[in-house]
Amino acid sequence: MKKLINSVDSVVTDALTGIAAAHPSLRVDLDNKIIFRASGPRPGKVGLVSGGGSGHEPLHGGFVGYGMLDAACPGEVFTSPVPDQMIEATKGVHGGAGVLHIVKNYTGDVFNFEMAAELCGDEGVEVVSVLVNDDVAVQDSLYTAGRRGTGATLFVEKIAGALAETGASLADVARTGREVNERSRSFGVALTPCTVPAAGKPTFELTESEIELGIGIHGEPGRTRAAHAEAREIVRVAMDAINDDLPLSGDLLVLVNGMGGTPLMELYIAYAEVAAYLKEKGATAVRSLVGNYVTSLDMQGFSVTTCSLTEELTRLWDARVETPGLRWGR
Amino acid sequence: MKKLINSVDSVVTDALTGIAAAHPSLRVDLDNKIIFRASGPRPGKVGLVSGGGSGHEPLHGGFVGYGMLDAACPGEVFTSPVPDQMIEATKGVHGGAGVLHIVKNYTGDVFNFEMAAELCGDEGVEVVSVLVNDDVAVQDSLYTAGRRGTGATLFVEKIAGALAETGASLADVARTGREVNERSRSFGVALTPCTVPAAGKPTFELTESEIELGIGIHGEPGRTRAAHAEAREIVRVAMDAINDDLPLSGDLLVLVNGMGGTPLMELYIAYAEVAAYLKEKGATAVRSLVGNYVTSLDMQGFSVTTCSLTEELTRLWDARVETPGLRWGR
Repeated sequence: MKKLINSVDSVVTDALTGIAAAHPSLRVDLDNKIIFRASGPRPGKVGLVSGGGSGHEPLHGGFVGYGMLDAACPGEVFTSPVPDQMIEATKGVHGGAGVLHIVKNYTGDVFNFEMAAELCGDEGVEVVSVLVNDDVAVQDSLYTAGRRGTGATLFVEKIAGALAETGASLADVARTGREVNERSRSFGVALTPCTVPAAGKPTFELTESEIELGIGIHGEPGRTRAAHAEAREIVRVAMDAINDDLPLSGDLLVLVNGMGGTPLMELYIAYAEVAAYLKEKGATAVRSLVGNYVTSLDMQGFSVTTCSLTEELTRLWDARVETPGLRWGR
Repeated sequence: MKKLINSVDSVVTDALTGIAAAHPSLRVDLDNKIIFRASGPRPGKVGLVSGGGSGHEPLHGGFVGYGMLDAACPGEVFTSPVPDQMIEATKGVHGGAGVLHIVKNYTGDVFNFEMAAELCGDEGVEVVSVLVNDDVAVQDSLYTAGRRGTGATLFVEKIAGALAETGASLADVARTGREVNERSRSFGVALTPCTVPAAGKPTFELTESEIELGIGIHGEPGRTRAAHAEAREIVRVAMDAINDDLPLSGDLLVLVNGMGGTPLMELYIAYAEVAAYLKEKGATAVRSLVGNYVTSLDMQGFSVTTCSLTEELTRLWDARVETPGLRWGR
């Protein structure tokens, strides 16, 4: 295993040290492993907290900032953060209007965020959770009961975050976050496995002629193994899976997401095929993102996430955002 | 070779099709293989054109937009674009104030851009070129006489682009572009080779315990092969090489650039070591970027680029930019 690390035990701390050094807009609590906005909580604004295992960067820490999250809790690589982190983060972003937890549907994350929410409630901080479970590939898997939470997490964080900036109530921010999740679907494909530093070897094996369809973001098994094929065919498998679950029509927000090791050039090749597929179905990607946003360390592969937009969701997507990982608007 | 492509012959066209579909702010001329701003040339503004082999995305096409380039010419993978592309791009962005060519120092690129500039001159379009040669690793190499142009290309494109938006003259924009190059130094390290689609196999071989120091962005040989080591040590080799060439002091702009296949988490680990090194030297990264900006397909590794800032260069770096690959400001 060749990785650009100092030791397998210090990867999260060392990466947080780098994040702190690179981004003056963030305040990193190294002891508790929490990434906050440096500006602190804004009185009257709903606070947004997310978190999950490390190794998916820029998710979640890279999405802390104006218009998205107030804090992110990174666990060890591919391991849920602990309730203590979540409690500390929740209290730290509470500006009097309550806190939204955005939780990807993995058993450990769900359990720990539930415990944290309950304990925060006991201390007088109102917490509501939005569960993200957009991945149509598998029902139940190695780490999940039900569907996994993947690319739509970015959509929920961006859109709920934009609404929170307007001073909306916790109930409204949560309702909109859930609406985004319900309108979103994802499917991922791996060309190679990834290597978790502490494991030191690939999470699974794929031959030079195989790909894994319906992969999760931890290298957990997908739907099926298949022969490697043209981008056109692979994208069609992903889009058919999404379209079978929620027929694609109208105005969409589309993410073509790299798993970490795939060249941007190839992601654009995939995006071209996604756009062609949508045209066939009479749908249009009126907003899109192409790049590494919800990654799995060095895995080669991609995922597609679609979200059926409304006028309101489009407006919130377009709203100003200033985070290390996502930034636009005036 | 497993790549997310349709065929080795169509990678550039297919990627351009995806770029066109994903970014309404761009106009892609598929026949001539040129990425333009959709808004067209602005009368009185100096036009900026760059280009080079494909496989380094987001460089250059991802840097077309307000505050950076007016057009980019992608060649085949790791192959210079041809003079016809450059001529078409140059004429297409000429708004009456002349055109700046930003050229990475590779023999093919230099030769072709020179020919294009001459032919444009014959047709009455004034062209001035800025040569980028920031890589301290090697003097002369497989593709270059003199030093290679790498990460500083992004700095030159951003800062010269910002100045051009203010209505500055071609001479001034060129002078500032050259100043940025002169103040910039880079050094890259590969943990793995990359695979060019048409070749179908890695550009070189590295064992599980070896890394290549001073690598270029095409998988061309570096300074030396070394044993894989901690991030701390590897970063020190890179920073020492830069510091030996141009002692690091004062306020710096720093890019920790991923070669395409390295997880963002590892780039932040490297950035932490860069920041620690700079502190030792009494220098400070007052502006920084961490991510995949000047890549080599799926290569794992990173490069560091430093630029010694002035007040003027800092102001231009901070100026609004709106491109697919770089975006900030109001």
